[in-house]
Amino acid sequence: MLQKFQQFIKKENLFAVSDKILLAVSGGIDSVVLCELFSQAGLSFAIAHCNFQLRGEESGKDAEFVKSLSEKYGVEFYETVFETKKYVETHKVSIQMAARDLRYNWFKEVSESHNFQYIATGHHFDDNIETLLLNLTRGTGIRGLRGILPKSNKIIRPILWASRNEIADFCEKNDLTFREDASNKETKYKRNKIRHELIPLLEQLNPNVKEVFQREIGRFKQLEILLDTNLQKVKEAVVSSKNDVISIDLELLKTFHPTPLFLYEILSEYGFTESETENILEEHHTFSGKQFFSSTHRIVLNRNHLLISKKVETNLSEEIFEVPESADFIEKPLRLRFSI
Amino acid sequence: MLQKFQQFIKKENLFAVSDKILLAVSGGIDSVVLCELFSQAGLSFAIAHCNFQLRGEESGKDAEFVKSLSEKYGVEFYETVFETKKYVETHKVSIQMAARDLRYNWFKEVSESHNFQYIATGHHFDDNIETLLLNLTRGTGIRGLRGILPKSNKIIRPILWASRNEIADFCEKNDLTFREDASNKETKYKRNKIRHELIPLLEQLNPNVKEVFQREIGRFKQLEILLDTNLQKVKEAVVSSKNDVISIDLELLKTFHPTPLFLYEILSEYGFTESETENILEEHHTFSGKQFFSSTHRIVLNRNHLLISKKVETNLSEEIFEVPESADFIEKPLRLRFSI
Repeated sequence: MLQKFQQFIKKENLFAVSDKILLAVSGGIDSVVLCELFSQAGLSFAIAHCNFQLRGEESGKDAEFVKSLSEKYGVEFYETVFETKKYVETHKVSIQMAARDLRYNWFKEVSESHNFQYIATGHHFDDNIETLLLNLTRGTGIRGLRGILPKSNKIIRPILWASRNEIADFCEKNDLTFREDASNKETKYKRNKIRHELIPLLEQLNPNVKEVFQREIGRFKQLEILLDTNLQKVKEAVVSSKNDVISIDLELLKTFHPTPLFLYEILSEYGFTESETENILEEHHTFSGKQFFSSTHRIVLNRNHLLISKKVETNLSEEIFEVPESADFIEKPLRLRFSI
Repeated sequence: MLQKFQQFIKKENLFAVSDKILLAVSGGIDSVVLCELFSQAGLSFAIAHCNFQLRGEESGKDAEFVKSLSEKYGVEFYETVFETKKYVETHKVSIQMAARDLRYNWFKEVSESHNFQYIATGHHFDDNIETLLLNLTRGTGIRGLRGILPKSNKIIRPILWASRNEIADFCEKNDLTFREDASNKETKYKRNKIRHELIPLLEQLNPNVKEVFQREIGRFKQLEILLDTNLQKVKEAVVSSKNDVISIDLELLKTFHPTPLFLYEILSEYGFTESETENILEEHHTFSGKQFFSSTHRIVLNRNHLLISKKVETNLSEEIFEVPESADFIEKPLRLRFSI
């Protein structure tokens, strides 16, 4: 396992041996194994733990356990306590979204102020496949099917290649202790249904289905690159901006195929859905002056152009991408990567 | 149902009201409903039935039943009997592949010699979703996920919008009789496992999962268009042909991103797999003169070019795309559409 870990870091060019890495550690088995591997490999690391105060007394015990880990390895320990429920009420977002935002900002702060080059999470191979299936049932399109990336900006996933079984074996062989994630045993949750029911059923259809999905994830990734490469060119051609108003040249956009795909990719950044995009494409000939609204933006049809501007009062709409509950961290919603 | 049927024909531009359509009829519920709809709409059609002799006495009864349908509607009837098992032995292909080849060639012959503009099949909405899931577990990539097309060359699917339930309702209301497909009741088959176990489980994860999949199929279709549009340009730039040898300019290909995707799309037409494509990309620098073989073709590395030629003895490799068993017809394997 140690060898595979080191090979993966090298192959995916995750970081240099001299870099200082901040590990996002929940105390669950994945992040405990992550710590042990960093230690066995002799790498320079520290441990960060978020207490979301969502599991009552258990949340405090998680934090204590992670602190004891940092003592075991003799590394720095960073900890924070979030008023997650308050954040949910104030920002009108889901608990999951709140936890993600809070984590994201805090890890970024810690890594910047203490000079960590990267933040590492304990995402693994099975997380990746479960996320693929969950996003498939939710209909997130290609963006949700290309899986978790080994490296994206400052976030790295050094054990993304490891299966849940490999992680459990390593844990046993190295006599590691960890905290049980309470939600893991409740099959009422979707992720557990996927793990304990859906994947075994898919394995009846094809015993190698996990390997097949891994290959498919690789293909979806390439299709996403293809889409982004094309999208970049299309945007350079048709999108312009003046005085906080974004203008899209619809006649020019129609010379790029498939037009509905490109228009959706552009408008989704402003909170518009696929069916709204279709309406706009259908109606732009007939109704000059007609308006369309997302939760954050307004579009006005103006002959052959779409004029997009910000609505005055906005609420962040709920993000539909799913993140593994077992993980400590996820990058910002994907669509933000394409803001103009 | 009749109205939806007529609207779909118009919206998808399937055929003109004056066209003569050959219906592929197995005698199962889908094709029986297809006949009734053509009759109720007052369209000009005839019925064709293939007897594959795979179900013993039942095969003969199927043929008799379909003949009686043609008498009921007062339309022409075309019938053929295939030595399917002999074909399997001679051509070393699967039964499914044999049935597809035999059907394809015969329907084409009949429609050409009797002036039918199109051949219609009874594929429906649930077929489409089941095929998506089956191809997902088999790892066919985007080509297997974009679903069945309403129209492809001479083949049309006029009830592709209809769910299995809608078809059953229409059948009952119109007092139609049909032949049971024997394999439908045997859950040992993959398609039935998908229908009776996988889809209900997915519906527990998301009650609207069928609608989600329909939308995803639409998105995959658009991604396929994007891929094909790009692929066409790449091929025009890097592929050339002389004296039965096809040459690919690998250095030039590397300027198109993502390179592995384009190379795989080009080489898969000659029977090469994804991992062989990866090997070629990795090794082309080091081993000039090295050869790679698919079941039908040979590639020689020649500095910055790949030279592809046909092997002398070839066997058709088995096609991995799945077709609904309930359907009478399917187009030729997709990859053939891209032969140079």
